[in-house]
Amino acid sequence: MNHNHTPVLIIGAGPAGLTLSHLLHLDGVESIVLEKRSREEVEGTIRAGILEPATLDLMKRTGVGDRVAREGIPEEGIEISVDGNRTRIDLYGLTGKTAAIYPQHEFLKDFISRRLKDKGTILFNTTVRDIEGEVVTIETPAGEITHIRADHVVAADGSASPWRQKVAEVRARHEYPYAWFGLLVEAPPTHSELIYATHPAGFALISKRNENVQRYYLQCDPNDQPEDWPEERIWEQLHLRADSNEITVSEGNITEKAVLRFRSAVTEPMQRGNLYLAGDSAHTVPPTGAKGLNLAVADVEVLAPGLIRAVKTGHTDLLDKYTEFALPHVWRAQQFSWWMSSLLHATKGENHFSARRRIAQLRSVLDSEAGRRFLAEQYVGTQAKELTS
Amino acid sequence: MNHNHTPVLIIGAGPAGLTLSHLLHLDGVESIVLEKRSREEVEGTIRAGILEPATLDLMKRTGVGDRVAREGIPEEGIEISVDGNRTRIDLYGLTGKTAAIYPQHEFLKDFISRRLKDKGTILFNTTVRDIEGEVVTIETPAGEITHIRADHVVAADGSASPWRQKVAEVRARHEYPYAWFGLLVEAPPTHSELIYATHPAGFALISKRNENVQRYYLQCDPNDQPEDWPEERIWEQLHLRADSNEITVSEGNITEKAVLRFRSAVTEPMQRGNLYLAGDSAHTVPPTGAKGLNLAVADVEVLAPGLIRAVKTGHTDLLDKYTEFALPHVWRAQQFSWWMSSLLHATKGENHFSARRRIAQLRSVLDSEAGRRFLAEQYVGTQAKELTS
Repeated sequence: MNHNHTPVLIIGAGPAGLTLSHLLHLDGVESIVLEKRSREEVEGTIRAGILEPATLDLMKRTGVGDRVAREGIPEEGIEISVDGNRTRIDLYGLTGKTAAIYPQHEFLKDFISRRLKDKGTILFNTTVRDIEGEVVTIETPAGEITHIRADHVVAADGSASPWRQKVAEVRARHEYPYAWFGLLVEAPPTHSELIYATHPAGFALISKRNENVQRYYLQCDPNDQPEDWPEERIWEQLHLRADSNEITVSEGNITEKAVLRFRSAVTEPMQRGNLYLAGDSAHTVPPTGAKGLNLAVADVEVLAPGLIRAVKTGHTDLLDKYTEFALPHVWRAQQFSWWMSSLLHATKGENHFSARRRIAQLRSVLDSEAGRRFLAEQYVGTQAKELTS
Repeated sequence: MNHNHTPVLIIGAGPAGLTLSHLLHLDGVESIVLEKRSREEVEGTIRAGILEPATLDLMKRTGVGDRVAREGIPEEGIEISVDGNRTRIDLYGLTGKTAAIYPQHEFLKDFISRRLKDKGTILFNTTVRDIEGEVVTIETPAGEITHIRADHVVAADGSASPWRQKVAEVRARHEYPYAWFGLLVEAPPTHSELIYATHPAGFALISKRNENVQRYYLQCDPNDQPEDWPEERIWEQLHLRADSNEITVSEGNITEKAVLRFRSAVTEPMQRGNLYLAGDSAHTVPPTGAKGLNLAVADVEVLAPGLIRAVKTGHTDLLDKYTEFALPHVWRAQQFSWWMSSLLHATKGENHFSARRRIAQLRSVLDSEAGRRFLAEQYVGTQAKELTS
């Protein structure tokens, strides 16, 4: 295969990059995906994931949905616990749809395997050194410097993308005064559905990975280190925050500890010249609500038709509107992630008014069918779909 | 009548005080209402009002609902305008109920007239000088100092109540970085329903007083004086913020200008010994959503049964729980007033993230049936009712 020219060069074999190259291929547009890590590393970086109905629809529609249909766990409801009193949000009953719990690395495996089966080009262990218009300078696995000419370049290489600065005019940011301390625990499930728990001591999230391993998160200070959380403190805080009538957090051997940062960022515009940003390179969402992967997929669902039309007909009218078409769903996801985070986290220095008001808002959402449905639509992601269709 | 002793002494002939004395009377408990202003002043202080279904129900149920039924204007819907694009919130369609637009002074006239017809005691031009347990020192219209013994004392004398400090352990406050510049204008109606308009330049509220007089509000700086708003600026800003397709703000002679402050405050607890706070003396809400009067009525609907039971049987068990029973609706009203204010006001120094997120939240509410219903329930006040019934 001649690597000297490609209509579309995609940097990053993550959710945005792989989905995009798959969508382009199905419409007869070839691309090259460059990924600095090895295939093993990409497929082996274990990350939780919740796939929204729109993401599942795309996978099914484009022939990569068989395994997730078999192995994904339908998320039919979630529990929200306020000081130990649980309210179930019947996601399926309220929206008619379910998301699926399916780890992000499994999603990546499905797309990598399909791209390779379709003779797609993914160059692993390959680093981009420079982008100058159509000329992309890369370093091969052998350490050789070479060039690829690309009509269009898509930077889908994550939140640390060095290419964002070539595009961004505005980088809107929000810092949260908290983070999550994530734990992997060898224990039986605490509960079959996710529990989002809020308590004056802070937030906790109880999730089930499988019958033997559970993933728990505790709200912590952004500067906390795993050493700040001895086992005794972990279990005390998990029970305090997340135990509720009939449900006790199950304990076990802790096999992994990590602090997850909380930040929101949006880049505007998402394109300049022939360079486009997609997924985390353009925007970062906090983990609450698990919007990141779905937002990346939503980006490339907008970008792909524009690229296809440009490559096939030379008309860039659709492509020129990529930012305009993508930003509404980006801000909607940011808004929801911020809102759900703000509802559930007690913040240090939160005054009496803010603390009471926050719980009053949570109660007004949970105690009303309209409130629960408003939350469920955004959580499952059907609201955005309904609005754009 | 002997004023030396009363089972219940009520300070303030406002919505809370008058409603309470009426409710007590219907159950055979007499009270004295003290009001420092004259009857003419109380009835002549013109203030806008929106009566929620729960307030209307109480008026009807207790025989003071005839005039509001005839003269109140049903509020079947409101318009929310975002940068000139309007979305109607069909309050009646979404909740099955309507509030009524009925000025607060008309509400007061109805209760004063009914209390006097029922031989109730309202002492106008009478000032409370001191409260010491059961002994209340007052200054009569003639300037005479005298005492009344009261088993229970209710301070319903508004947000400047000097008696709050005898009760409050916590005074939770929130200051808003904006205020409303209110105008009374001799002009035909701009629109039949309220328009809540948000724009990067700020918020505006367009309301109809009658066929010839309109009340408009413009978001302004809390330190603004009427002099900061020459006519030219007023009309320019009203058109900029509130004009929308087919609707143009109607102009006319401005007959009144005033700056309304925005603040939230909640006192906890709302009782100590035999002294109780009700309405604005206990809590202040900002004007957005017009919750103040309704919240005062909701307070006394909780307080009255406790007082009646205590006076009739000597059992204070219900009365002791007044604060506990009242605070949930207080915080719910605070939350909604804060939320609706926050959604609609552009704030100075608001960063790009906050501004975009705010509009994304507003859109997610307005573009979804569940979102509109969630807003409508809280606006009309049916949510609180549904939850406690």
